[in-house]
Amino acid sequence: MNLRDFIRDIPDFPQKGIMFRDLTPLMGDADAFAFAVDELAKQFRTDRIDKIVGVEARGFIIGAALAYALHVGFVPARKPGKLPYKSVRKEYELEYGVSILEMHEDAIKPGERVLIVDDLLATGGTISATADLVQSLGGDIVAYAFLVTLKDLAGASKLSGGRVVSLLDL
Amino acid sequence: MNLRDFIRDIPDFPQKGIMFRDLTPLMGDADAFAFAVDELAKQFRTDRIDKIVGVEARGFIIGAALAYALHVGFVPARKPGKLPYKSVRKEYELEYGVSILEMHEDAIKPGERVLIVDDLLATGGTISATADLVQSLGGDIVAYAFLVTLKDLAGASKLSGGRVVSLLDL
Repeated sequence: MNLRDFIRDIPDFPQKGIMFRDLTPLMGDADAFAFAVDELAKQFRTDRIDKIVGVEARGFIIGAALAYALHVGFVPARKPGKLPYKSVRKEYELEYGVSILEMHEDAIKPGERVLIVDDLLATGGTISATADLVQSLGGDIVAYAFLVTLKDLAGASKLSGGRVVSLLDL
Repeated sequence: MNLRDFIRDIPDFPQKGIMFRDLTPLMGDADAFAFAVDELAKQFRTDRIDKIVGVEARGFIIGAALAYALHVGFVPARKPGKLPYKSVRKEYELEYGVSILEMHEDAIKPGERVLIVDDLLATGGTISATADLVQSLGGDIVAYAFLVTLKDLAGASKLSGGRVVSLLDL
């Protein structure tokens, strides 16, 4: 199966000059979605993952399905103010301005083996902030998993502590 | 397994007087998460579901895992401005003010059998708006699935067109 056939290119979204890679057709197709989750799951079967951390919001979709497929717990990394319990937070820079991610402080136990998941790796800023949160809780980052990597943005160079797995480079 | 043991009660969140039911411990536990997804999946094995619609953001977690378990496509119902392609939108009333949900206009094909999923059923306003979007695209709502229903809020009375399945009443 060629997953590229299920990715829709949308020019000038969310702003002029950006080619947005819309993965909703992939997620919306039963066979493509199952294929993508299975292909990622294969890569981590022997890694003894304890927790998958998915990044709000699209990272929840692939991350939660992968957590179920691998029989591991799922932890959301959320935008500020969404988590009800005591949380750790990380502020990080975007192209314009800053953003914040939070995780519950008991979401990862020290020494747990963590896989960080998002649908798409772009500049790596959000994923790198997620990694900092996981490490601040004592988690051991085993790997990062994505459906798609935007190669030109070199986001993988920002990620440390684990290998980077991606099904498709665009 | 008693899923109630994995739900954390947090008083006065997001505002005074509200008892928030925090499902992150359930999602974070490999066995509890798999058990919950499997219990829901059992209820829909013979329903010939075509698409699961998950409501942003926590509905993505249980909805996507359930879509994988049932081998069906996953469709996100999103907050405004997030979807890149042509979308339908529904404005709906909250206790204070209004909110908006959107879905891609090609996310559901006429006649497709749809299961709407969220983590928790409260007043039913958001779920009912999601149902309206699905029906506006010609989808046939087979059922609604939740991990938890807040019985006192009587949200189920707002939902029509399909049966309501919930693992836990609180």
